Amino acid sequence: MPGPVLVRGTGLLGTSVGLGLRAEGVEVLLHDPSPAACGVAQDIGAGTVVDLEDPALAPALVVVAAPPDVTADVVVDSLRRWPRAWVLDVASVKGAVLDAVAEAVSRGRLDDGAPPRFLATHPMAGSERSGPVAARGTLFTAAPWVLCPTSETDPGAVEAGEALARALHADVHRMDAAEHDSSVALISHLPQIAASLVAARLQDAPDASLALAGNGLRDTTRIAASDPQLWVQILSGNAHRLVPVLQGLRDDLARLVEVLEAPSAPGARLGVARLIADGNAGRARIPGKHGAPPQAFALVTVLVDDTPGQLARLFETIGRAGVNVEDMRMDHASGHRVGMVDVSVLPGRRDELVSVLTDAGWKVV
Amino acid sequence: MPGPVLVRGTGLLGTSVGLGLRAEGVEVLLHDPSPAACGVAQDIGAGTVVDLEDPALAPALVVVAAPPDVTADVVVDSLRRWPRAWVLDVASVKGAVLDAVAEAVSRGRLDDGAPPRFLATHPMAGSERSGPVAARGTLFTAAPWVLCPTSETDPGAVEAGEALARALHADVHRMDAAEHDSSVALISHLPQIAASLVAARLQDAPDASLALAGNGLRDTTRIAASDPQLWVQILSGNAHRLVPVLQGLRDDLARLVEVLEAPSAPGARLGVARLIADGNAGRARIPGKHGAPPQAFALVTVLVDDTPGQLARLFETIGRAGVNVEDMRMDHASGHRVGMVDVSVLPGRRDELVSVLTDAGWKVV
Repeated sequence: MPGPVLVRGTGLLGTSVGLGLRAEGVEVLLHDPSPAACGVAQDIGAGTVVDLEDPALAPALVVVAAPPDVTADVVVDSLRRWPRAWVLDVASVKGAVLDAVAEAVSRGRLDDGAPPRFLATHPMAGSERSGPVAARGTLFTAAPWVLCPTSETDPGAVEAGEALARALHADVHRMDAAEHDSSVALISHLPQIAASLVAARLQDAPDASLALAGNGLRDTTRIAASDPQLWVQILSGNAHRLVPVLQGLRDDLARLVEVLEAPSAPGARLGVARLIADGNAGRARIPGKHGAPPQAFALVTVLVDDTPGQLARLFETIGRAGVNVEDMRMDHASGHRVGMVDVSVLPGRRDELVSVLTDAGWKVV
Repeated sequence: MPGPVLVRGTGLLGTSVGLGLRAEGVEVLLHDPSPAACGVAQDIGAGTVVDLEDPALAPALVVVAAPPDVTADVVVDSLRRWPRAWVLDVASVKGAVLDAVAEAVSRGRLDDGAPPRFLATHPMAGSERSGPVAARGTLFTAAPWVLCPTSETDPGAVEAGEALARALHADVHRMDAAEHDSSVALISHLPQIAASLVAARLQDAPDASLALAGNGLRDTTRIAASDPQLWVQILSGNAHRLVPVLQGLRDDLARLVEVLEAPSAPGARLGVARLIADGNAGRARIPGKHGAPPQAFALVTVLVDDTPGQLARLFETIGRAGVNVEDMRMDHASGHRVGMVDVSVLPGRRDELVSVLTDAGWKVV
């Protein structure tokens, strides 16, 4: 891992990069237009605040972790300031940043040697919280980190990006910027928009209706609690990849509305069935844990009282049975002091687990 | 709880009703057009199979748990066969069933005394699995069970419905059929459609794109793995309440597509920000656990190895700290043998829990 590493932008991502690298013993320098954000990042141990105008400043790698709409400017500025440094960014959309770098060359603001030193990257990690206070050195652990080298990117820049991702224990993926931007339009931006659209419909719903809400609604709208400022930048920045995906969604929805406007017409039921079946097929393509096919696990649902120590007892029982928990979640109904824990296990272990739990006095639902 | 109770339809819901009532010592009779389904239900202890033509058959309460599209017919048939029984159904859409009963009266197929004996109800419980084998007597525990009496419903029918819901430990809600059908259009049918529409877009996605999928996509599409046959009946049966909701969704989506087609136009960013902000506002209206406002809990994320016994150790540590777990879920990246457990606790206990966990050697992310 080359050092020192200069992190420009000490929000959630930049500060987390600093913390993670410091934990690995790498020298980290910090800068942010907000002295307060920068000071907090330094205070929590993410690195040392520096003055960009300091002539002695000679970073081996610059990590641009600025907000999406200023990322390209900070990248170009960094390539100009430190002609020997590798520069990479961590913004969610890659095409726009690469275009801006190419444009800076064509306008004479950067020399031809600059683009090979730049690597566009995207660590797919985040949090519902933001800012340096929410940062964690382990934020990127086991998360995908996409590297998007172009044909002119210097292998040294790619190596520096890989070294960074590996130092932070992320899972390195490589694809070109167009492939990346199309991928996130589908797997990240589309669900964000769908969740926001569904949640927006709830604004004027009667309380009595919302009191009936179950986990279907909760899960479908969870990411609707996202930061509007950040998402405006992300969605606008990837608009031309996103529009075709949304047009497909809009056409499917328009067809469904048409069908439901005359639900007894010939073929109407087939139209509805096809939507649900297409959803089944798409859902089945999302890889499961450890890349396993989805739904490969069997579900065991256990009733637990809502008191401290209950979960410890439950998992102690499961551990004693020697059954590995592949996944779990807690469900609960509003107004009840009882929870339901869904435990996913290998199908072959299901019956055994149910009998161990039942013998131990647990209510398996 | 009046008895005997005749359950007509021994799928997941009917068999679960039988199992739950048998556990409370109530006499349960079973019937299903499929002798196999009926036999399985009897074998697992949900009640005793009966012949509908048996003149000695005198149920106090008939629970119609047939598929949605034949529910009304089975209700009318039951009201005719047993003129002294209360009859209720458990289908997901209520207006259509009540209309069918009224129509049967107007056509002279039922006498005026029949409608007061009928109560439309909807237990909001289910499972990703179906059929009698998936049934559990505790399926309805802590789930909402909506009763929809009309102005002519006999108080005795309402009492029977309440007694049934309470015997099965459900949470009784009361509203009229129109309010119910509008509510489920919004909180159940809309998220189902959104999840299916998003998942349908994934059908032809490259594997490399899907390998980047995170929990945002997984959560938003979880319910897309639903039974097409059942959902055709539900969505078609509630089409006229659902169409206005979907038209609103379609209009919002069309506006967003328009905005993103010219993302640099004046006002475009505001349009995108408004969608996300509206989603924030709607999401914030979904009640949390025990009816508490959502997002009232603080999140602590802990790294765990994917081996048996790790969760027991984790929850043992948490239990020792005396901190109650309000909610939890396990996250994981595909391809990694490490999981992340999100634990929600009261905000005032967060720092304490983090320090107890850290002292015990856990990696808090």
